[in-house]
Amino acid sequence: MLLLLMCTGALEVSQRSPLACWFSSMLYCFGGAVLSGIIMAEAPVAPLANSTNVLLATLMWYLVFYCPLDAVYCCATMLPVRLVLTGMKEVTRTWKVLGGVTQASRKYKDGVFVMIAVGWAKGAGGGLMSNFEQLVRGIWKPETNELLKMSYPTKVTLLGALLFSLQQCGYLPLQTAQLVLLYTAFIVTNKVRMMLMGSSSSPFAPIESAFHKLLFARPLTSPTQPRSPARPRLADPAHVSEAAGKGASGTSNGSPLPSASEAAKDHRGSESSKKTN
Amino acid sequence: MLLLLMCTGALEVSQRSPLACWFSSMLYCFGGAVLSGIIMAEAPVAPLANSTNVLLATLMWYLVFYCPLDAVYCCATMLPVRLVLTGMKEVTRTWKVLGGVTQASRKYKDGVFVMIAVGWAKGAGGGLMSNFEQLVRGIWKPETNELLKMSYPTKVTLLGALLFSLQQCGYLPLQTAQLVLLYTAFIVTNKVRMMLMGSSSSPFAPIESAFHKLLFARPLTSPTQPRSPARPRLADPAHVSEAAGKGASGTSNGSPLPSASEAAKDHRGSESSKKTN
Amino acid sequence: MLLLLMCTGALEVSQRSPLACWFSSMLYCFGGAVLSGIIMAEAPVAPLANSTNVLLATLMWYLVFYCPLDAVYCCATMLPVRLVLTGMKEVTRTWKVLGGVTQASRKYKDGVFVMIAVGWAKGAGGGLMSNFEQLVRGIWKPETNELLKMSYPTKVTLLGALLFSLQQCGYLPLQTAQLVLLYTAFIVTNKVRMMLMGSSSSPFAPIESAFHKLLFARPLTSPTQPRSPARPRLADPAHVSEAAGKGASGTSNGSPLPSASEAAKDHRGSESSKKTN
Repeated sequence: MLLLLMCTGALEVSQRSPLACWFSSMLYCFGGAVLSGIIMAEAPVAPLANSTNVLLATLMWYLVFYCPLDAVYCCATMLPVRLVLTGMKEVTRTWKVLGGVTQASRKYKDGVFVMIAVGWAKGAGGGLMSNFEQLVRGIWKPETNELLKMSYPTKVTLLGALLFSLQQCGYLPLQTAQLVLLYTAFIVTNKVRMMLMGSSSSPFAPIESAFHKLLFARPLTSPTQPRSPARPRLADPAHVSEAAGKGASGTSNGSPLPSASEAAKDHRGSESSKKTN
Repeated sequence: MLLLLMCTGALEVSQRSPLACWFSSMLYCFGGAVLSGIIMAEAPVAPLANSTNVLLATLMWYLVFYCPLDAVYCCATMLPVRLVLTGMKEVTRTWKVLGGVTQASRKYKDGVFVMIAVGWAKGAGGGLMSNFEQLVRGIWKPETNELLKMSYPTKVTLLGALLFSLQQCGYLPLQTAQLVLLYTAFIVTNKVRMMLMGSSSSPFAPIESAFHKLLFARPLTSPTQPRSPARPRLADPAHVSEAAGKGASGTSNGSPLPSASEAAKDHRGSESSKKTN
Repeated sequence: MLLLLMCTGALEVSQRSPLACWFSSMLYCFGGAVLSGIIMAEAPVAPLANSTNVLLATLMWYLVFYCPLDAVYCCATMLPVRLVLTGMKEVTRTWKVLGGVTQASRKYKDGVFVMIAVGWAKGAGGGLMSNFEQLVRGIWKPETNELLKMSYPTKVTLLGALLFSLQQCGYLPLQTAQLVLLYTAFIVTNKVRMMLMGSSSSPFAPIESAFHKLLFARPLTSPTQPRSPARPRLADPAHVSEAAGKGASGTSNGSPLPSASEAAKDHRGSESSKKTN
């Protein structure tokens, strides 16, 4: 919580507008509850209803930003204090993810995707909303977001949401308590290791890389590369139909591929299933 | 559905971050349900609860973007396949719009504006959210949106939402089934015609143009043009009161116009009706 | 209402896209209801359900933007008319704020923060959403928002939300009716004074300035200023852990401050209270 507070505002924001700084900090603290509230159609303002929590978070925010001599900031950046705080932060992550998954499973019994989404949103809300949290401070960086380039906390929360959702649906041969213990131990030791070694390299990097190569490698295109020239114009959805029309007239002279009919069937299946919505 | 998928990501996004690409594609597929969920205070995450649909859409997304030899993309851009797919897509549009209108009419009996809004949001959700869908992919084009410059699908969906809402409120001498048939026939034939002729010109263009000239022509200003010089400063709402104050001191020396008293009455009516909210 | 309408669109938007202009104007008129709807998980589309209000607001919008000879705009900018309209607008502000506070208090009995937030959102919705209202018109100014630099209406609405929330929770020795009277008298006289004197200076300026100096003065940093060099890198949350790590190694050689242990206790309190969420 505290480490997040440290970054929320460039100091100038804390001087220019304490209110924007405070709001931005609250989005960090309660971002998970706000985001999961929005996607579950529950009141995003609900975290404010627990006055004690809000007052505590406000006290911490005040001490970090405006304490004389920067005393709180300085002591919070001392390594032993940071280790303890970080460890506790990771423990709360487990509870947040589990809370999100069970909250979703109450409403959507078998919706494993909903559980993953809500658990992820609750655990990593501040990060996933970072674009809008920055907007509060007058900063706008559309070229990056947590989906395009996931940070380690977001990744590990997604993993947790996945595991807890599978466990909730009975796909994992584990009790909830066992999984809580294992997952917490994993994220705490991992985070402490990363802090002590000063490395920012994710432990998932090799797995991810292999996975990416296996599944998402650039498909081999035919020599004439029908796709590439058409793509730049496709960036804007408004031009799709025209561009696709041109692309079609350019590529339809190729010989039909054997899988065409099955693919078309799939599309039909997809479309007709939509109709039953 | 598929044609939309084709445009969702520049290829680089699909390579840089499959997750952002997937999320963006899902916003295209389920954008209508997400947007109508948000404006009706129902869970925007609900479309994920139908696991079969999500898996089908994910399969299509995967095949379009990562299939070896680009087979699926190539065959989907062949004209006959595209004609069939487009036709089916337009049929689902009717059902989505009708679904949105009936969903709204259940909650707001006589709220014809609500019905139009929800029907439109459900049928053209992906387009209306395009700014935020682009943001997922790291693209941000604030200078344009579907309200400023409507595309053909958005327009035809708005027309559909209007017709179905009027029918629902009993203002049209038609059965629902008849209207479904007529509207579907209209959008399918129209779309097929546009695809075959490669024209992107909307069939509404002449009507729109006449309508626009009749209703929204630039009003004739008095020779001194009291409005134009004041406008540039009015762009920023923060300065309204000052700018309006100056404008007033500049124009109040003109003779009062005959309609002034009635206009003022209207304002009063508008204000007092607000009080009853 | 009308004064707000005047600023909503640069004239070119009203010519380029009447629909975007209309939507933007409606966001001004019903922004409070939309925003409080979103944060309370009630349908943001609900204001459209009152067809009479929507039609009245649409009529006003049409007359202001497209009336021949600009008659309505001209007469609305005349000082006497503006004074009356502004006075009525401030009266409706009181009712909106009170409505928001009571709406929140029904759901969250003792949530004074929720009441403040909802009351504020309902009273100053258009302003708080100004970034997104501008986006509708194709304008995007991320570097500023109402939290970073509050305008006078937003400030006075926040004050009202605060007062009505405290009254609702029984912290003020006043009846609701008395507070309504006092608050309305204050904002109306204040606004009229500002309009007549053409001053844009807020009456809160001296109080705010003293408050800001007392509470949010830049804390005295130690001579080596451990914070400043680390800050620029902290702007991006993705780099927090690394940057904080470096900051720690740079500052942990300082002597531990006396308040360190208590501060750490506070953090623990904060963290463990989060667990009980």
